[in-house]
Amino acid sequence: MTPTSLRSPAAPAAPTASARGTLRPIPIDAAAVTGGLWRDRIERNTAAGIPSGRAQLVTAQNIRNFEIAAGDAEGEPAGPVFADSDVYKWLEAAAWEYARRPDEQLLRDQLDLTALVARAQADDGYLNTVVPARQGGRYGELPWSHEHYCAGHLIQAAVAQVRATGHDDLLQVAIRLADHLVATFGPGKTEDVDGHPVIETALVELFRETGTRAYLDLARWFVDARGHGILEAHGHQPTYFSDRVPVREATTVEGHAVRAVYLAAGAVDVAVETGDDALLAQLERQYDAMQREKQYVTGGLGSRWEGEAFGDPYELPNDRAYAETCAAIGGIQWAWRLLLATGKARYADQIELMLLNGFLAGLSLAGTEYFYVNALQVRHDAHADDERTPANGRLGWFDCACCPPNIMRLLASLQGYVATEADGSVQIHQYAPSRISAGGARLKIETDYPWDGAVRIVVEEAPGAPLAIDLRIPEWAEGAAVDGAPVAAGSYARVERAFAAGDEILLTLPLSPRLVEAHPRVDASRGCRALVRGPLVYAFEGVDNPDVVLDDASIGAASEVAEHREPGLLGGITALEVGGLRAIPYHLWANRGPSDMRVWLPVA
Amino acid sequence: MTPTSLRSPAAPAAPTASARGTLRPIPIDAAAVTGGLWRDRIERNTAAGIPSGRAQLVTAQNIRNFEIAAGDAEGEPAGPVFADSDVYKWLEAAAWEYARRPDEQLLRDQLDLTALVARAQADDGYLNTVVPARQGGRYGELPWSHEHYCAGHLIQAAVAQVRATGHDDLLQVAIRLADHLVATFGPGKTEDVDGHPVIETALVELFRETGTRAYLDLARWFVDARGHGILEAHGHQPTYFSDRVPVREATTVEGHAVRAVYLAAGAVDVAVETGDDALLAQLERQYDAMQREKQYVTGGLGSRWEGEAFGDPYELPNDRAYAETCAAIGGIQWAWRLLLATGKARYADQIELMLLNGFLAGLSLAGTEYFYVNALQVRHDAHADDERTPANGRLGWFDCACCPPNIMRLLASLQGYVATEADGSVQIHQYAPSRISAGGARLKIETDYPWDGAVRIVVEEAPGAPLAIDLRIPEWAEGAAVDGAPVAAGSYARVERAFAAGDEILLTLPLSPRLVEAHPRVDASRGCRALVRGPLVYAFEGVDNPDVVLDDASIGAASEVAEHREPGLLGGITALEVGGLRAIPYHLWANRGPSDMRVWLPVA
Repeated sequence: MTPTSLRSPAAPAAPTASARGTLRPIPIDAAAVTGGLWRDRIERNTAAGIPSGRAQLVTAQNIRNFEIAAGDAEGEPAGPVFADSDVYKWLEAAAWEYARRPDEQLLRDQLDLTALVARAQADDGYLNTVVPARQGGRYGELPWSHEHYCAGHLIQAAVAQVRATGHDDLLQVAIRLADHLVATFGPGKTEDVDGHPVIETALVELFRETGTRAYLDLARWFVDARGHGILEAHGHQPTYFSDRVPVREATTVEGHAVRAVYLAAGAVDVAVETGDDALLAQLERQYDAMQREKQYVTGGLGSRWEGEAFGDPYELPNDRAYAETCAAIGGIQWAWRLLLATGKARYADQIELMLLNGFLAGLSLAGTEYFYVNALQVRHDAHADDERTPANGRLGWFDCACCPPNIMRLLASLQGYVATEADGSVQIHQYAPSRISAGGARLKIETDYPWDGAVRIVVEEAPGAPLAIDLRIPEWAEGAAVDGAPVAAGSYARVERAFAAGDEILLTLPLSPRLVEAHPRVDASRGCRALVRGPLVYAFEGVDNPDVVLDDASIGAASEVAEHREPGLLGGITALEVGGLRAIPYHLWANRGPSDMRVWLPVA
Repeated sequence: MTPTSLRSPAAPAAPTASARGTLRPIPIDAAAVTGGLWRDRIERNTAAGIPSGRAQLVTAQNIRNFEIAAGDAEGEPAGPVFADSDVYKWLEAAAWEYARRPDEQLLRDQLDLTALVARAQADDGYLNTVVPARQGGRYGELPWSHEHYCAGHLIQAAVAQVRATGHDDLLQVAIRLADHLVATFGPGKTEDVDGHPVIETALVELFRETGTRAYLDLARWFVDARGHGILEAHGHQPTYFSDRVPVREATTVEGHAVRAVYLAAGAVDVAVETGDDALLAQLERQYDAMQREKQYVTGGLGSRWEGEAFGDPYELPNDRAYAETCAAIGGIQWAWRLLLATGKARYADQIELMLLNGFLAGLSLAGTEYFYVNALQVRHDAHADDERTPANGRLGWFDCACCPPNIMRLLASLQGYVATEADGSVQIHQYAPSRISAGGARLKIETDYPWDGAVRIVVEEAPGAPLAIDLRIPEWAEGAAVDGAPVAAGSYARVERAFAAGDEILLTLPLSPRLVEAHPRVDASRGCRALVRGPLVYAFEGVDNPDVVLDDASIGAASEVAEHREPGLLGGITALEVGGLRAIPYHLWANRGPSDMRVWLPVA
């Protein structure tokens, strides 16, 4: 229980010094979101989300499963086969939360839970509370058993715990489990893969944390093993599992969306740590195809309920959009890794798009209700026949509860995505009131973004040497300026000089509302417009338009859009009005009860 | 094995004399399709479909399951839990086929198979080759076990066999099984329902055949039992099973499409036999809502892969249309029953629409390959990740093989849908070269419909008394004429007089191509047009338009449509051309290999 030295590396992913890469994450405690939209959400996560998540793990019996496995209780494990992973995601959230705001009760809670997890571990390192009890053994049906998936989330939680709290209790569990995996799986051993990736990112992070090369090697093997018929040999249809085509040959994403993007994120980790530039380039190609052909305007990923899957290119229905909250999270993880590897602004654009739309829509303003599915349209007479149906409104938990604790861990580590460093430079990717220590400087960001486009960077402490501060100019920000001088959209604007304390940089991002068009191959949105302002996609919600049947609404192609700052509405927003219809940010819909909603409206 | 007296009533459904109703079916052998499109398909069913179906039942081990249950073989039953139903559907097809064209080998085949089925029956009448062997008992999980579903198909086959061949071998099996059901299920007995309806129509038909009132009473109980939480009590989500709302309260269809329309057909049978006008009226309301809000332009039913289900109103994607072939068949059965009950032309219109489009698309021109799913769009780079995916092209059989033998039984009994009688009148609903004996008259229909709109009705034998001949004028047939006089579309045109042999009536249906619009709430088809000629929906197929990427094609709203009679193409068709794009009848697509295809094209 004694903390090891707090190494304090970056939260979301921390490549080694020898990894391929352009940008480096900054330490998890080197950035803090101090106000605005994100601070509200982060604090709600602290005050309500994480505590209620802990309670839900008791109610849904996930924790009791560990008590049974540890011999503290008797009975059969409850819940889905991947129930353990919800506990591990919560532990990861609690760890990052401690780094952000050390709270001794939260630390005790996570260490107590860690101790229970440790006692549920088998002597040889294997750890799963459901599969052996329910299936009578280990790894009998790995494509569906999620045993590596659960192990991956445990490892991610352990890495977060040691980085954020200095305690290595869970790390020791993770190392024993990883050693067991290394001893069991791989070439010449058991040549099998889990149907649900996540072990890949986890093992690479554990390699980064421990230096044990075998973890990286096993992650690489898991990445390379896909696409060679292993899952088909189990009698499974390979597309669903990202197993139809080898990762390094795939030109797009397909199948189960969360599986696909988690796998891709892990493959980037493998590529950068092994110097595999061909693999990295292929993952950029896949990302590009996904963004171009298979992504909603909200950044939502996955258009099919059937198989929770990516559809064919341009198959993007609005009413039956699946756009699972977890898929947006995985999309952010993948984009973050490509951002570090390449330094391309487009990946930071993607992170912003997904964070503020496809991801954040999954969480209520109260911080304790969730969407699993993030549709872009709910008809007036939509029938809610499934707990995931958005017409139900957000729910407090799900039978398959992958999304809620996933949201918690991302919100608790959100500051990790704000900025990076490179030699002699600092990159600011996401704009929020914040403090950033990087490149030898201490910076304070003052802004009311995303409501207002003015972003003031105040140098509170300057390094001795000249420093380059790179400011992301989003692709939509035509007309942006730094200190009054125009800068190019879709890149980083560099301000380089010997800064002095008190220096300021003023970035101005134009937030004029835009009516955007979909690709003409997208049936459901053809001839329609979506309303976007800065990084925010807007939605027309029934509650704001009581005199209209939204199903029958349309707008003029050249309609004027009016803005209204509404400090008292939904935590304070800029509302928009077009053609007599009122719109709010998409991520805030369904916070006033279930309602009909549309993102795309036909042009009259 | 001695035939009972051949009672020869109508094929698809035969209400008793005391049933509510407007029209009466004519005997199964009182009509014959003698040429044209349908004759080609019926003969292909005889020569290829039914024989290959028999072979597939061997390959897929459905018949072996009966051998095991009869004690002729050892092993575990194979295939899905409803495997028996495929055998029964084939037996029904073989029976109707015998009525159409008595073939002694086919009779021997079906009686041999009947004998095997009889030997697989338990002493108390229970009959199922899969469930007891696989689940260790009967009726343990009726919502999923399909035990009543299989029983229903057996009963339907038995009724067909006795009507068409005079043999009552299978009828005796069906009576024992139905008596077992009556003894086991119902108020005060086991109050449970099968998740998949079909037993309802079957029991009413068995009542009609045997006069045993208990079968009708049990059918009525099964109809009324739904919507009262029985399936939910088993832990199932009720919408999927048409169990959320009682049948007599439901205002639309929802959930699994085939389940919903089979149930509705059975409920009509119950309503007409019990004189339940309120129930009948409610089923008309449901049909109307389905047709208006949940039906594709092809007559296809069911827009969701997830749950093979009806979607919300106007949720009708083209690429992911499910439109299961079996759902079209069920939709025809429901419409036929409403047609008999009400005499409204709209139901015969619906039968024609579904027969020539949503149903017939499910069958290859060769007669031995099938679509399970009937999409209205296949993108150029569509990925076929499921055997049901239309991008695969049609397949010879499916793991879930409900559709192929369902097609066989409908084609073998198709002549049953051509005409009806009422007091002193004959109704001709479907136009094809045919002979009809009804109302004391013998009529010969000469036509090249649906390619040509001229239909000549020749009176070969006239009754002594005056006769009314009612000719259906489809709703789309504005400008139709009978013997040169204009008649109203969407109704029956009556020609009433004392006919003499040799008299002729000439009906002219205008077949000018139309570019039709979808309801503006249908996202995927908004701003598009579909090309229709007479009853035929057309499709643009990649193979006919090699220089165009159909995904990017569009047409002018006022485009001229040109017609080309193509005697050598696809068995002889009228092809259409619009805006430089060539179209063929939708039901014939995918007969020249897999291809991209669209029914709806955007207006440029």
